[in-house]
Amino acid sequence: MGPHPAVAAIRLAVRRTLQEVLRDAGASGHGRPEDGRPPLVLVACSGGADSMALASALAFEAPRLGLRAGGVTVDHGLQAGSGDRAREVVSRLEALSLAPAEAVAVTVGRAGGPEAAARTARYAALDEAAERHGAAAVLLGHTRDDQAETVLLGLARGSGTRSLSGMAAVSGSPAGRSGAGHRYRRPFLAVDRQTTRKACMVQSLPVWDDPHNTDPAFTRSRVRHDALPALEKALGKGVVEALARTAQLSRDDADALDAWAADAESSVRADGSAAGSVADVTDDSGAVLDVARLHALPSAVRRRVLRRVTVAAGSPAGSLFARHIEEIDRLVTDWHGQRAINLPGRVAARRQGGTLVIRQV
Amino acid sequence: MGPHPAVAAIRLAVRRTLQEVLRDAGASGHGRPEDGRPPLVLVACSGGADSMALASALAFEAPRLGLRAGGVTVDHGLQAGSGDRAREVVSRLEALSLAPAEAVAVTVGRAGGPEAAARTARYAALDEAAERHGAAAVLLGHTRDDQAETVLLGLARGSGTRSLSGMAAVSGSPAGRSGAGHRYRRPFLAVDRQTTRKACMVQSLPVWDDPHNTDPAFTRSRVRHDALPALEKALGKGVVEALARTAQLSRDDADALDAWAADAESSVRADGSAAGSVADVTDDSGAVLDVARLHALPSAVRRRVLRRVTVAAGSPAGSLFARHIEEIDRLVTDWHGQRAINLPGRVAARRQGGTLVIRQV
Repeated sequence: MGPHPAVAAIRLAVRRTLQEVLRDAGASGHGRPEDGRPPLVLVACSGGADSMALASALAFEAPRLGLRAGGVTVDHGLQAGSGDRAREVVSRLEALSLAPAEAVAVTVGRAGGPEAAARTARYAALDEAAERHGAAAVLLGHTRDDQAETVLLGLARGSGTRSLSGMAAVSGSPAGRSGAGHRYRRPFLAVDRQTTRKACMVQSLPVWDDPHNTDPAFTRSRVRHDALPALEKALGKGVVEALARTAQLSRDDADALDAWAADAESSVRADGSAAGSVADVTDDSGAVLDVARLHALPSAVRRRVLRRVTVAAGSPAGSLFARHIEEIDRLVTDWHGQRAINLPGRVAARRQGGTLVIRQV
Repeated sequence: MGPHPAVAAIRLAVRRTLQEVLRDAGASGHGRPEDGRPPLVLVACSGGADSMALASALAFEAPRLGLRAGGVTVDHGLQAGSGDRAREVVSRLEALSLAPAEAVAVTVGRAGGPEAAARTARYAALDEAAERHGAAAVLLGHTRDDQAETVLLGLARGSGTRSLSGMAAVSGSPAGRSGAGHRYRRPFLAVDRQTTRKACMVQSLPVWDDPHNTDPAFTRSRVRHDALPALEKALGKGVVEALARTAQLSRDDADALDAWAADAESSVRADGSAAGSVADVTDDSGAVLDVARLHALPSAVRRRVLRRVTVAAGSPAGSLFARHIEEIDRLVTDWHGQRAINLPGRVAARRQGGTLVIRQV
């Protein structure tokens, strides 16, 4: 008799991811430490059902593929007793024969709000652990339900296709460390939360719920417990799946349009400088663009080109909003003698005859 | 003293639309009937606040721009007394000095469910009225709130960027009649429902609510009364605006990617036939595509090319789902000797060496 279907499902998802890790490690030469030991794959584990299911599947699959399996839990230090809890998670990881199995304590700052600050601290700690152990990959337990919530959160920003693309199945370090372009893997993005819970139950794995997950002070918690159920009630049970599919389609669309914009940027530069070149941080930084060629681009591509050029000229991406880009765009599409447009980071956009000049002032 | 801000807002929105109608009519020669009378713009009016506000603004602005203003109300015949109600709407349109002001009775079928069937019948009747009166445009009262609801309904389909693009500000006939590429205009897509209600109130315009709008049997009604308020509670008051912005950005992105796919189609055809040519409805319909060139396209573009070619080969667009396209795509990206894939409309896709052949069988 084979394993319970829920256990089979989580193992299959992890096996596919590990095969990709092996393929990528083979291709890049990364993840094959010189000490001759098998490559190590870490699981980031909170002790909740999703990441405990992930840890159990990793423990089962890794040895069969010639990989070592380890686990890290991050102690955010946000509740009393969080240290005890982290030690308990470590002992559960050890019970699954994961080695190393360790807790890493972090200090959560305030930048960007409580959820973003916790996230930044968490990924920095995971990056550090991955570097220290020379891990080939770090697995994250996000499920299809998490993906659906992320799409709704992106929808609330209203900033377009990229913001609807959710979490990537494979991504570099959100904490911005170098040399780890494909470090993070999310094997469960097509697995629902019900399956991970079931897999823990039938394997008698103890789990607990993160109190943040039910705290209505957190936006994600409100999306999970209020918004998604209301959407399902209004639109039917397929909503989570539809949101997850939207993420994948939006990601592919955003990637294609970004690639087009990168190409188009060089064709609209009237100053002959190469697209994507590192902008000289001098008085000469910025760009001179040909208005006629900009005008001929589809608006979706033109706006992406304008954003790229404006960021390259020194405007911080996080402060540059859709309304800024629309205002620059009107210098191309609705020119009636407007004044120069002042943008974040002391960048200005101005029309000069048949050109658009975007540079720091 | 100028008009109430709500009245000023609806008039401004309508004035801008009428200016576009005049510009387009001048450019195309349409909408200037040979009888020498000014062009006619019709409003589609249910008697609800949105379309009554629209009718009042049209009645005010049209004469100032040298246009005639008329109104049509559609009697769907779905409730007892709907005929009386339609006559009452006509008298309200007449009170605004709209001429013609008429009711058109339709018979609602069943195809696609109650909402789709009512919609099909409604647009067919509006098309017919527009043709009969030689109208240059038909104005529709959809607001930003309706747009937000439409985006959520599209999200529930999970079929990507195009399905998130909501309603167009300018569109041809959804009923599919010819010769009316820009017939329908939606001046209020950036105006919220609260403003149209206020504008009716301060102008003492009687309005009523469509019982469908509060009937929980209708998906849109559930979205309006349950899903959107829950989203606003979880994500903040800006949700409607974010959804409406998502519609515009998604529409632009989908247009750009469709244009790219149309271009790419000709470059991947290995059979030398022109892209976009009307497929010969013979045994020779279909296409032979170069796998290497398909593979080099971004997946978002490749999948659109595959969809275009499959529809051109005879597969009905409405029966061709994302999973079909993904299966065809795997003949390109994950080739391991799969059999031919059978698609709706007796179309088959098969790999033959370095080519992909999609044709009716």
